[in-house]
Amino acid sequence: MSEHRSQYTHRVRVGYIDTDQGGIVHHSVYLRWLEQARVELMRVNGLDHTTIGYDTEFSLPVARVQLRYLRPAHFDEELDVQCTLAKVGRASLQFDYRVVRGDMLLTQAEVTLACVNVKTGRVARTPEAFRKIVEE
Amino acid sequence: MSEHRSQYTHRVRVGYIDTDQGGIVHHSVYLRWLEQARVELMRVNGLDHTTIGYDTEFSLPVARVQLRYLRPAHFDEELDVQCTLAKVGRASLQFDYRVVRGDMLLTQAEVTLACVNVKTGRVARTPEAFRKIVEE
Amino acid sequence: MSEHRSQYTHRVRVGYIDTDQGGIVHHSVYLRWLEQARVELMRVNGLDHTTIGYDTEFSLPVARVQLRYLRPAHFDEELDVQCTLAKVGRASLQFDYRVVRGDMLLTQAEVTLACVNVKTGRVARTPEAFRKIVEE
Amino acid sequence: MSEHRSQYTHRVRVGYIDTDQGGIVHHSVYLRWLEQARVELMRVNGLDHTTIGYDTEFSLPVARVQLRYLRPAHFDEELDVQCTLAKVGRASLQFDYRVVRGDMLLTQAEVTLACVNVKTGRVARTPEAFRKIVEE
Repeated sequence: MSEHRSQYTHRVRVGYIDTDQGGIVHHSVYLRWLEQARVELMRVNGLDHTTIGYDTEFSLPVARVQLRYLRPAHFDEELDVQCTLAKVGRASLQFDYRVVRGDMLLTQAEVTLACVNVKTGRVARTPEAFRKIVEE
Repeated sequence: MSEHRSQYTHRVRVGYIDTDQGGIVHHSVYLRWLEQARVELMRVNGLDHTTIGYDTEFSLPVARVQLRYLRPAHFDEELDVQCTLAKVGRASLQFDYRVVRGDMLLTQAEVTLACVNVKTGRVARTPEAFRKIVEE
Repeated sequence: MSEHRSQYTHRVRVGYIDTDQGGIVHHSVYLRWLEQARVELMRVNGLDHTTIGYDTEFSLPVARVQLRYLRPAHFDEELDVQCTLAKVGRASLQFDYRVVRGDMLLTQAEVTLACVNVKTGRVARTPEAFRKIVEE
Repeated sequence: MSEHRSQYTHRVRVGYIDTDQGGIVHHSVYLRWLEQARVELMRVNGLDHTTIGYDTEFSLPVARVQLRYLRPAHFDEELDVQCTLAKVGRASLQFDYRVVRGDMLLTQAEVTLACVNVKTGRVARTPEAFRKIVEE
């Protein structure tokens, strides 16, 4: 039986490919890391694409993204992407993020996913499994 | 002498690389297009990295990004990225965006750039050239 | 009626996102441009995903890639991606590429696509439409 | 004192961002993983950008890439990128790769880096530190 945890910290290593000619991580790269972190948060809760019908019954397209870049990250640094499932709505999931290097906050983010029925293409009720994560 | 225009529409073609297994454009790709559109908006105003000291005197790191994904885009579609320099702050630039397919609004976005002195690494006054764009 | 041309030159503009901290275009970016160029070569021959059953009847996964990086490209440069459909095999397509800046050769590449039946997942005979391109 | 090893296996997890609408990992993504693996191979040999003057004294631009895609990879799979420093030339490094899922070979690759003096921009002698890796 899997635990229920609404928080997960995902460690990433900055690659050379992630940098731009300003010598810092390009702002677009963070969306990659945020996605990885929420997949891992799901996984520690026993939810992955094989168990929850993802892409066969429902999908979770990104509906809204907000990022604040406070300090830059650099090549080869190890960063922690702190991911929290903050809210499970009727037909949406909201994740809050802090990207930190040690105890230095680099980036804050919020990502909202919509829940969509893949057969009808319409908004669908958020699966109960997600609700359990935040209720624990 | 170059014109001053605070709006520019940049056309993009969705590549196969831009899609994900959900069959739509991955949400991270839009940041690429927003960046392209603001570079082109600068260019029609006679401002490019060779004329304005970009990366030698000052840089314009992305400070804040907000995206709302209303409808998906698909492989091989032609999209128009409508970019407006909405506000020139003391040490920042704010761009508003609408990504459309024909007259269908797909994505709305706001991007704020900070103005930074590359020698000192500190916040710098926005170059006058940007102010002219919105005053016209 | 569409023409048959085995060559097409696709112009690209280097984005800031395409650079790395070495101040040049990251080597991975060229695969994006090569893909765009072959989609456009197909299009001028009247072949696109809507006309040739791409992804519904057959797919063309990349089977082999070879790239030689001779000179670097930089932010905001305009490059020409010269794409040639060099060979139509029984179950494959081979494209040759030259990426140039003006008359300066920057990168050479070869890309081989396999032709696969999407229902069976097995190698399939290359559609006749591709053969016509090189025979003209 | 660090060990000398010419081989390193780097584990990666396929992200949703890495897939395309064909339902497999896009062919461009492998270059990201190959780069990560060779950075890690260097690291276990005590060589990273802080110890070897990378980007301050010399750089190692990619000069040649060859990839053979034998079988596709899919979302959320864990893959092993087996990286070998195969040859240290006078002014180049050659890495051989096998990307595997369990004992199934998915992709083979070779990457050649050139060694360049960052001050002169000219080809430079490969640092002795790399030679030690393959001699052990």
